[in-house]
Amino acid sequence: MTTRDIDDNVRAELDRLRESIDNIDAAVVHMLAERFKCTQQVGHLKAEHQLPPADPAREARQIARLRHLAESAKLDPAFAEKLLNFIIAEVIRHHEQIADQPTPGDPRRPGDPAVR
Amino acid sequence: MTTRDIDDNVRAELDRLRESIDNIDAAVVHMLAERFKCTQQVGHLKAEHQLPPADPAREARQIARLRHLAESAKLDPAFAEKLLNFIIAEVIRHHEQIADQPTPGDPRRPGDPAVR
Repeated sequence: MTTRDIDDNVRAELDRLRESIDNIDAAVVHMLAERFKCTQQVGHLKAEHQLPPADPAREARQIARLRHLAESAKLDPAFAEKLLNFIIAEVIRHHEQIADQPTPGDPRRPGDPAVR
Repeated sequence: MTTRDIDDNVRAELDRLRESIDNIDAAVVHMLAERFKCTQQVGHLKAEHQLPPADPAREARQIARLRHLAESAKLDPAFAEKLLNFIIAEVIRHHEQIADQPTPGDPRRPGDPAVR
């Protein structure tokens, strides 16, 4: 086997793995798009009924559950927790934006201190 | 409709949305477990053939592709890019750990300057 053969084999194996990674990333992007559709609905529900954007008890349950799922899938539970916190931070940012939007008939404008 | 009815309806709607979010999170955790299986293989391949752990050209292509996919899925492309960078940082950490491990027959030990 020549060095060139080894290079071609390594390149082919790398390409094969990267194609799988790209397929998984596309799936994750679409799953997260669907997740944000759900959390946007949660945000509107919370804003409409004056519920706070963050919910620490719910988040603690989510983290415990995901760490457990990660362990059984042989994914680092600490990474799963960091990832969920990263996504939740984005969700809370969305919820705050939704809460800042005036509801129909509400004379307050976004940016008024009472709306923030 | 009483206040209690509204509360029950809001609670039921919130529970319904949260069940979907939990299902999606479980799917994402399992997709990412599979993704790390692929990147671990990439890491071993790179370590074996002395390829660098990071690959800026590949990462630039991945980011451009994911931003495009995110746009078509109505997910914030900036969020998709931040998320990919977050995952890639973890992958590079794994690759560096793999590169630090001595290969069979390699007298160097992890921690030796030449191995880092």
